Amino acid sequence: MRAAVLRDGRVEVRETADPVPGPGQLLARTLSCAICASDLHFMDHPEGVAADDSGLWDYHADRDIVMGHEFVGEIVSYGPGTEGRLPVGTRVTSLPVLVGAGPVRIIGCSPEAPGGFGELMLLTESLVRAVPEHVPSDQAALADAFAVGEYYVRRAALGPRDVPLVIGAGAIGLSAVAALRRRGVGPILVADYNTSRLETAKALGATHTISPADRSPYDLWREVALEGRSGRPAFGAADPEAPQCVVFEFVGLPGVLDGIIQGCERGTRILSAGGPPEGDRISSMVAKRKGVNIQFGGGPDPEDWYGTLEAICAGGLDVSPVIGLTVDLDGVPDALQVARRADGPARIMIHPAGDADLGGTR
Amino acid sequence: MRAAVLRDGRVEVRETADPVPGPGQLLARTLSCAICASDLHFMDHPEGVAADDSGLWDYHADRDIVMGHEFVGEIVSYGPGTEGRLPVGTRVTSLPVLVGAGPVRIIGCSPEAPGGFGELMLLTESLVRAVPEHVPSDQAALADAFAVGEYYVRRAALGPRDVPLVIGAGAIGLSAVAALRRRGVGPILVADYNTSRLETAKALGATHTISPADRSPYDLWREVALEGRSGRPAFGAADPEAPQCVVFEFVGLPGVLDGIIQGCERGTRILSAGGPPEGDRISSMVAKRKGVNIQFGGGPDPEDWYGTLEAICAGGLDVSPVIGLTVDLDGVPDALQVARRADGPARIMIHPAGDADLGGTR
Repeated sequence: MRAAVLRDGRVEVRETADPVPGPGQLLARTLSCAICASDLHFMDHPEGVAADDSGLWDYHADRDIVMGHEFVGEIVSYGPGTEGRLPVGTRVTSLPVLVGAGPVRIIGCSPEAPGGFGELMLLTESLVRAVPEHVPSDQAALADAFAVGEYYVRRAALGPRDVPLVIGAGAIGLSAVAALRRRGVGPILVADYNTSRLETAKALGATHTISPADRSPYDLWREVALEGRSGRPAFGAADPEAPQCVVFEFVGLPGVLDGIIQGCERGTRILSAGGPPEGDRISSMVAKRKGVNIQFGGGPDPEDWYGTLEAICAGGLDVSPVIGLTVDLDGVPDALQVARRADGPARIMIHPAGDADLGGTR
Repeated sequence: MRAAVLRDGRVEVRETADPVPGPGQLLARTLSCAICASDLHFMDHPEGVAADDSGLWDYHADRDIVMGHEFVGEIVSYGPGTEGRLPVGTRVTSLPVLVGAGPVRIIGCSPEAPGGFGELMLLTESLVRAVPEHVPSDQAALADAFAVGEYYVRRAALGPRDVPLVIGAGAIGLSAVAALRRRGVGPILVADYNTSRLETAKALGATHTISPADRSPYDLWREVALEGRSGRPAFGAADPEAPQCVVFEFVGLPGVLDGIIQGCERGTRILSAGGPPEGDRISSMVAKRKGVNIQFGGGPDPEDWYGTLEAICAGGLDVSPVIGLTVDLDGVPDALQVARRADGPARIMIHPAGDADLGGTR
């Protein structure tokens, strides 16, 4: 098959071996796949993969790896030990996890589990879900990305006094905005240096947007949430009616987490999806004094993934505002460079088979 | 009065001005006061005080400061605007907070609020509590220290599947052990390099103790808590019956928090009381991958303080195992050096008036 192949630290478009479905697996022809920031992490920071003891990732510079874990494909054939539950030709998407005879792998993150940056991919029959006729492939492909925001928002368990501030309006930050709006949360504050991403945030439900270049997002939070009241005091019992600050961190650059700790209100809960590969420095005394709580990653869980796909299919979640560019396989190397830029589009979609036969209305 | 006075970064025992009670305040003669690690922090890291915007601390190298915020004294006289609710001579202790005409201050952490390292101190009438006849002054003086462990254990909101691991068996770590035992929690694991502190931990209720020099505390946790079961998996739903790791961090040295992040099980909750003044580095990718939650400081709240004092007075909490040494005022400078040592006693008590008239049985 043709694919954008990761080898020796760079991506080139060429032929690579056709994948062969193993026990419980099926072969799919890729229709749509998004470029995710974690693809860039994976290729740029193999040391992070090496340090991971889960075995879900498996980087080899000297073997072909086909990335891409946010995808829709159509079923081509079934491997051994499958039920053939869905007809060949059915459009499907899946949790990006490949289960078979070997170790369980994240799709697109090992030589054995080729992802959507190629013409063909392997999926786990028990995990695939059919994409309804009316749903565009590009939208269903983004269930995985939007499940991340869904996870963090679910995990935040927001109460009526919680006022959220989303730091970073990339695809995941935007997915959190969408998840907040789906729950009827308001106000929703979003900070990013990129004004076009702030516009997208508004399209997805942000009520207040700010560039940190213009003003402290925490000052904006105080203005919007406290409306002249006092925040949590340094000593004594907190006002049980006082608004609480919940910060979602979706940047992952060194210093961002500490900037939140420095700027936030006392008693702030931070949900941090970032995680610079080189680690990060935090002002632990300030965190202690403010009584900050940080929930790092830990998800998404399958319930977030399936719930998000259902919401997209039912029309309750329109993910299209995050799509900024569509390329074919030959465009992938350049598109990866665009995706590295902070001012790039939140999501770039790859259509390995060109623009034909994408299903749905798109 | 005579006092161990902090001036120009060092402590010397000499005369300093007698404090004069302001509105709502009373003058007390100090009977017992403990040396706390935060006294050492305060004198060694004034930059941390300068960075604090709460105003509760106020360091001046060129003014006399009398430290000491874990104390019992007897009432000498009342200031203006007081009720005189308790007779002169009553033994009292108090939340270490001085409220009056000026800014609210932590007692022992500013020139205006002299603490228990001197013969006389100022207290807030509305905050003092009488110490019952049968309770030794040294025990009641430690309500403040033990309230910290009480806070962290209350905040952890342990469920039946949670198995706690206490890292650091200083006074605060030991207070957490006592708070865990008071709740009937078991097993209780404690790690410290100091074997005598581990013995004290056992006296307070630890069921398993370990020196990290001998074995990883996290391996011990797995052995004790999991008993051969698997921990939380890297992918998919967690076993709802699986024991959960809750780590209490009471060390505050650089690298300790990251060591916990590196060593702990997936899904671990960390309650961190430490906070190196210089900040700390964390492996944020590992924290993200494991879904770690960190609750930094934020307490204790008044309810923890009063609850702990009540437990001591009712005989439900014997804090005496942490007391390792008793000195008079002249012994304070040397005692501060002893308190700096990791192998020093968890608490050193100061009796400014000598050993007479301490009340209770001690």
